[in-house]
Amino acid sequence: VLEFADVAAAHQRIAAHVHRTPLFESSLLNACLGHRLLFKAENLQKIGAFKARGALNALLHLKEQSELPRRLVAFSSGNHAQAVAWAAAVVGTEAAVVMPETSSTLKRQAAASYGAEVILAAGRPEAEAEALRRQRAGALLLPPYDDDAVICGQGTACLEALQDGPPLDAAFVPVGGGGLLSGTYLACAGQTPAPLVFGGEPQQANDAARSLRAGQVQRYEQAPITLADGAQTLSLSQRTLGYAQRCAGVIEVDERAIAYWTQWLTHLLKQTVEPTAALGMAAADAWLATQTRPRTVLVLLSGGNLSAQTRAAVWQQNYLDELPDRESKERFSSISLEIDMAF
Amino acid sequence: VLEFADVAAAHQRIAAHVHRTPLFESSLLNACLGHRLLFKAENLQKIGAFKARGALNALLHLKEQSELPRRLVAFSSGNHAQAVAWAAAVVGTEAAVVMPETSSTLKRQAAASYGAEVILAAGRPEAEAEALRRQRAGALLLPPYDDDAVICGQGTACLEALQDGPPLDAAFVPVGGGGLLSGTYLACAGQTPAPLVFGGEPQQANDAARSLRAGQVQRYEQAPITLADGAQTLSLSQRTLGYAQRCAGVIEVDERAIAYWTQWLTHLLKQTVEPTAALGMAAADAWLATQTRPRTVLVLLSGGNLSAQTRAAVWQQNYLDELPDRESKERFSSISLEIDMAF
Repeated sequence: VLEFADVAAAHQRIAAHVHRTPLFESSLLNACLGHRLLFKAENLQKIGAFKARGALNALLHLKEQSELPRRLVAFSSGNHAQAVAWAAAVVGTEAAVVMPETSSTLKRQAAASYGAEVILAAGRPEAEAEALRRQRAGALLLPPYDDDAVICGQGTACLEALQDGPPLDAAFVPVGGGGLLSGTYLACAGQTPAPLVFGGEPQQANDAARSLRAGQVQRYEQAPITLADGAQTLSLSQRTLGYAQRCAGVIEVDERAIAYWTQWLTHLLKQTVEPTAALGMAAADAWLATQTRPRTVLVLLSGGNLSAQTRAAVWQQNYLDELPDRESKERFSSISLEIDMAF
Repeated sequence: VLEFADVAAAHQRIAAHVHRTPLFESSLLNACLGHRLLFKAENLQKIGAFKARGALNALLHLKEQSELPRRLVAFSSGNHAQAVAWAAAVVGTEAAVVMPETSSTLKRQAAASYGAEVILAAGRPEAEAEALRRQRAGALLLPPYDDDAVICGQGTACLEALQDGPPLDAAFVPVGGGGLLSGTYLACAGQTPAPLVFGGEPQQANDAARSLRAGQVQRYEQAPITLADGAQTLSLSQRTLGYAQRCAGVIEVDERAIAYWTQWLTHLLKQTVEPTAALGMAAADAWLATQTRPRTVLVLLSGGNLSAQTRAAVWQQNYLDELPDRESKERFSSISLEIDMAF
């Protein structure tokens, strides 16, 4: 079982290679909500997303054990592909990234720019099959979240925030496969008292919330449709469900709130954020609305990689005329609060 | 006549109240262009734009002389209104901001959130008339650029970049009324050797380039139409033309390049930037293409305040599939280089 010290060790391992990303806050947003919100800007991380941390920690950990493979393979249409391509270049090993033909030119070019071999597959099943074929041929298949070293690497983002910022009442992160949620839990467990850890998950991709209710992993057969493409994973793993059960809860967020907060974070923080980054904010807003005294919370901005299609979908309707104050709360009427009251 | 020491004095005056904004760079962009580009992120400045610097310096300078007025007035549909509203709150004086009814709710709310009285006028002429009426009634009308203290305040952004970054070959800023260009010229004049200073101006709003060619101020009768709404000013002033004549040149940028670079800066730097901020980048790209050895340049990102309409116009067509490398140069075919070869 992992503990705080494993996240601290991961941070020592990767710190020289990743950015110590800044914490931002908006005085207007703080005034609107009546709480203090700190944003960890992992959109400014290497590859534009926190995933660089987990992938690099996994490879450096293997290197310490003299088990670094000569060839890596990953399949992904998103940030994981870029993270593996980048981390492989840092440790000096070869990487192949299998991506669906539907993935954007931009994402392919990004993976290629780190020196990875980019292989196009017809669809996601074909991409997975090709990756498994290469695994059988001797390449190491690096999992995106079901891996201790990946989990500890993702936890280093929150660790830095705890070192750089004020004491926190709670931390909010997006939930896809649960790697970031698990790592954040471990990072917070090193504090006394430990901040509460919440996940934000799309209502339309709510396998984590359903898994928590059922007490066992609930799985989608096909990738669910949501603006927050970083949360389209099919399920948690047994490992990440275990950590999720120790968190304060997973809060479901509807598509309108995802677009709303993506717009407002873009505007208030002047940062390019992907819709997945809005999940933590929407969850924070829902929780903060239940609090009767001022709280200080961390919102982890997962990344800033948007395709043109996703950007267009986010801005299809303009929400910047609706200030995020407590009087304009009707937009949250459709968020079903799934907070486990563990506190 | 102003000199470097006036900019240094302005910086001492305002430093405790403004953000020392970071310098960003993109290794991908540097590799694509074969030069080193540093970006001064004034989108992260108070009010989301560099204009906070000039307005505050003007007011603090008046305060030093015990000439701070009890009432301020400004008319603007853009960043100047917010800058005056914010700076007035910092020094504790009252401000009224006259804005056209067509200005967005967002901009009105922003000015009001700093405590200014927001007055709506039917259009720009009516806004100007109302501001002049209040000036006659005793309020101080703070000009957006034709003012020594405003110019020196704007120059502090480049001053910080010169202190925080490597030695520069050149600095690139957008040109509207010429306040930022003038201040940047003064900041650079304090270096030995002094970096070249260039302005970037919309081809469709090229009064500064035409004024330089004519040797006297050329003026639009009506605000020219361009995506770069911060550069829609009608003309330079006699004062700012004088500094512009000592700069290395003003480079005209077409609308496509403005949209192209707004998109790419948003993507590569993960920063929310307004189209006006792309003017410096497009100018830098045009100049760097003429250079035969690697250069280090500063690009000043003027701000990050976009209306929903402007954002939609920027993203109407997707340019992120066209990498900004030297092989994809056809997009610049329509930029007419107006570089004064002063070097």
